[in-house]
Amino acid sequence: MSANLNAKGWVLAVTMPAPTLQNNTADADRLSLAVQYQTQAANVRFDIELLRVLPNLLRQWNFSVRCVLCQDRDQWRVIHITSQEDHSVLAGLAIDLGTTRVVMRLCDLATGEELGETAFDNPQLTVGADILARLHFADQKDGLVQLHQLIIDGLNTHIADLCRTCHLVPQQIHLLALAGNTAMTHLFMGLNPQQIIREPYIPVTNRPGWVKASDLNIKAGPLARILIFPNIGSYFGGDLIAGILFAGLNKKADMSILTDIGTNAEVVIGNHDWLMGCAGAAGPALEGGVAKMGMMASAGAIDQIVIDPDTYKFDLHTIDNCPPIGICGSGLIDLAAQLFLAGMIDIRGKLMPSECGKRLIRQDNMYHLIVANGDTSASGANLTISQADLDSLIRSKAAMYTILETLTTTVGVAMEDLAAFYVAGTFGSFIKPQSAITIGMLPDLPRNRFRSLGNSSLGGATMALTTRHCNTEIDEIRNNITYLELNVNQDFMNRFSAAKFLPHTDPGRFPSVSAYQ
Amino acid sequence: MSANLNAKGWVLAVTMPAPTLQNNTADADRLSLAVQYQTQAANVRFDIELLRVLPNLLRQWNFSVRCVLCQDRDQWRVIHITSQEDHSVLAGLAIDLGTTRVVMRLCDLATGEELGETAFDNPQLTVGADILARLHFADQKDGLVQLHQLIIDGLNTHIADLCRTCHLVPQQIHLLALAGNTAMTHLFMGLNPQQIIREPYIPVTNRPGWVKASDLNIKAGPLARILIFPNIGSYFGGDLIAGILFAGLNKKADMSILTDIGTNAEVVIGNHDWLMGCAGAAGPALEGGVAKMGMMASAGAIDQIVIDPDTYKFDLHTIDNCPPIGICGSGLIDLAAQLFLAGMIDIRGKLMPSECGKRLIRQDNMYHLIVANGDTSASGANLTISQADLDSLIRSKAAMYTILETLTTTVGVAMEDLAAFYVAGTFGSFIKPQSAITIGMLPDLPRNRFRSLGNSSLGGATMALTTRHCNTEIDEIRNNITYLELNVNQDFMNRFSAAKFLPHTDPGRFPSVSAYQ
Repeated sequence: MSANLNAKGWVLAVTMPAPTLQNNTADADRLSLAVQYQTQAANVRFDIELLRVLPNLLRQWNFSVRCVLCQDRDQWRVIHITSQEDHSVLAGLAIDLGTTRVVMRLCDLATGEELGETAFDNPQLTVGADILARLHFADQKDGLVQLHQLIIDGLNTHIADLCRTCHLVPQQIHLLALAGNTAMTHLFMGLNPQQIIREPYIPVTNRPGWVKASDLNIKAGPLARILIFPNIGSYFGGDLIAGILFAGLNKKADMSILTDIGTNAEVVIGNHDWLMGCAGAAGPALEGGVAKMGMMASAGAIDQIVIDPDTYKFDLHTIDNCPPIGICGSGLIDLAAQLFLAGMIDIRGKLMPSECGKRLIRQDNMYHLIVANGDTSASGANLTISQADLDSLIRSKAAMYTILETLTTTVGVAMEDLAAFYVAGTFGSFIKPQSAITIGMLPDLPRNRFRSLGNSSLGGATMALTTRHCNTEIDEIRNNITYLELNVNQDFMNRFSAAKFLPHTDPGRFPSVSAYQ
Repeated sequence: MSANLNAKGWVLAVTMPAPTLQNNTADADRLSLAVQYQTQAANVRFDIELLRVLPNLLRQWNFSVRCVLCQDRDQWRVIHITSQEDHSVLAGLAIDLGTTRVVMRLCDLATGEELGETAFDNPQLTVGADILARLHFADQKDGLVQLHQLIIDGLNTHIADLCRTCHLVPQQIHLLALAGNTAMTHLFMGLNPQQIIREPYIPVTNRPGWVKASDLNIKAGPLARILIFPNIGSYFGGDLIAGILFAGLNKKADMSILTDIGTNAEVVIGNHDWLMGCAGAAGPALEGGVAKMGMMASAGAIDQIVIDPDTYKFDLHTIDNCPPIGICGSGLIDLAAQLFLAGMIDIRGKLMPSECGKRLIRQDNMYHLIVANGDTSASGANLTISQADLDSLIRSKAAMYTILETLTTTVGVAMEDLAAFYVAGTFGSFIKPQSAITIGMLPDLPRNRFRSLGNSSLGGATMALTTRHCNTEIDEIRNNITYLELNVNQDFMNRFSAAKFLPHTDPGRFPSVSAYQ
């Protein structure tokens, strides 16, 4: 067992000298010293429940144990001990607490190995799809209690299911790490989020730290602890901190950027010396949230489109190759890029009747473009995108680009100097950088500088469970980030207006796009 | 209220700037920063229950609050907040958890003022009068649970009574500090003490630290914390650490000694640079625990005796001037000293028939001395002391002196070099140094170097509640004490034999006693 023990993890194999008359340190202090020796912990604490069984267990196992630790800043804690001969799994659970989806990953704390993963819709969706709806609901009588209970019950149900799949029981989970946006984290902890939605937008806590799972009624090991990722404010959450950790932004000598694109665009720039972050409203378009045919990236969503510029033939690709149901955010960006390259929209994003031909229809006094005919779509109805949808997309991409430009200008860095450009989230997994550049949403960097991180929030949470040092790193990231308050002033509005063209009023910024045209 | 706020205590008056768009630190972190500024705390934590009410309370009180803190090593915690206009008492409770008696003192955490005190018999007395009986009982089925429950219930009952007397409710108690010997502390925490009575005598923990009162079912403030004094081992408990703190042994440039005299004699020597302690069996004689007429220092106990060396008339003094019921430890020492000075016992402590006259009777084949006649005693029967009682006292005083001699010899210090000689406990309050020196139990130092500390365990616990810095001092004391394991070897036996005379085989060590004779 010790052979493949992850030396950097939270599970330690500890062998102590047995007590004698000459060496009569107490049991807890003996274990504490051994842990301090291996970890440089300044001090180690024990829950009283563990102290009550410690003497018998230490003697039963001849003072050779495996123990599970956690560390809340300077205070370390032994939260579970077992025999070195006991080979059953000591499990950790990483949780990405999304507003829409919750993703959980079970891992072996001793080896760092991943054991299984599951995802489920955030049960709070029944109350409201977006954050604001839930926060307003939390303000009503019993609203907070209800929202809190929904997510706790949902987690417990799915933890039990995931454990069953992995042939474990929830009591084997001793450490959990949870990353989510500030609002979701508050609802998870049962903290009153009412000040998050009122100026000046104040969270209850920026640094929730480690919480006892049983204090939140999370059903796991009896003394299990949950590391809740810290936030920078109401609009820059623990999911971003987890993403920075996962991308390693804080450890690289070269400067990189990390973006998490959703209704809010969150952006961090920096290296091992400094980090600066900001968040701004990008609108729901980039998530596929405005278009009538918009949908989340799931089976049946159009995620890739190629338009033949000569024949105007649309070649659609859907997730899981199902008949198309709608279009997801990355598909929408692909569509806009292809429409632009085919000349079917102009540089303002307006549909060009001359090029769109029969695909263009007029409904509700507005142009609509048929993306998929009723004879190919899942519903049998035409899937269309309206001029309003396209206008909305262009505002969103302009906002995204403006935020990137404002942040880089503020720190005095040219986009070309970025060694890597990380795109987080599901969106990041599906987006084609080429298309995002074509519409001028992302800067025109060499394509190999773009890195899709996948679920970086879950990735960061997993790292916190498998590498002790991440705990300190998370605090460092939190404390080192300078948060740039986006002032929507004249400078910002000028940049925004200039970015509302495809790819930009200044095509010199997008040489590779001009080359295509 | 702030005017008489004890600046060194655990209650802080904190006024924060209200949040703005420019200063949007979260509520908890805002309070934390203000606390850090005033205390130099490296970090501050909050229980989730407090986080849940924090935003409303801070706004209700315009970000001006009084808060109660605690500090477990580097981890500070805000455990209660209230308005600066709220003048109701924030209370602390000091507990001296004795094997026989439990003494509690209620104090005002904000001002340091003492509010009231109470004492009650340790309810575990119903299981066994001495520690060993209880520890063996704890080893039986449900024994530990029963003993733990007895003391918890007893404390809760008397906490409620004491609060009522002081016009408070237990929910106003936010901090508690408990000092007791290692065994009693274990039973209080519900920790299995079985290894304390088995070689090599290992406690479960040397450093229990701060425990949530509700985790031990102590009924106090909802988030109240208990500081449990650390121990040095099974035979050197938190009560002694509290005594060192109370005497200030650890802060004086001059060397002093502290003794706690009971069945075990516990002795600490040192100054602000170093501390060395030891504990050894002295036998129950010094507590009045062997003589047939022996009793605790309470009403009716003979505590002072003067014998006229010419007439052999006994002048008895009893506690509360009641008719004599028995004799307490300090009375027994007084009696032995007076008998010796009157020539009624010789230097071996043997009763001298020629001098004792009619007071001497023979019972059970042994000499007995009538201390009080049946016509003056409370019971109507003669109160007598036997030769065996005197022999036992002499062994006890010899053990005490030998422990003192061994400790001072080990550190290479002459008794005369001690700036102060502190005597702790009830015993210390009643003992006349003159008598203890006469029988050679305490060294022949100028009388003004002897200081009676009273209940130093309660005193130390009170200090921990009223002075924040004591928390660090307690850790320092614990970590700085070198524990001297008393080896009962030939050297020790030689010293012991030499000390079994009145005052000593070497009368040169007791010049002031020789002067009397």
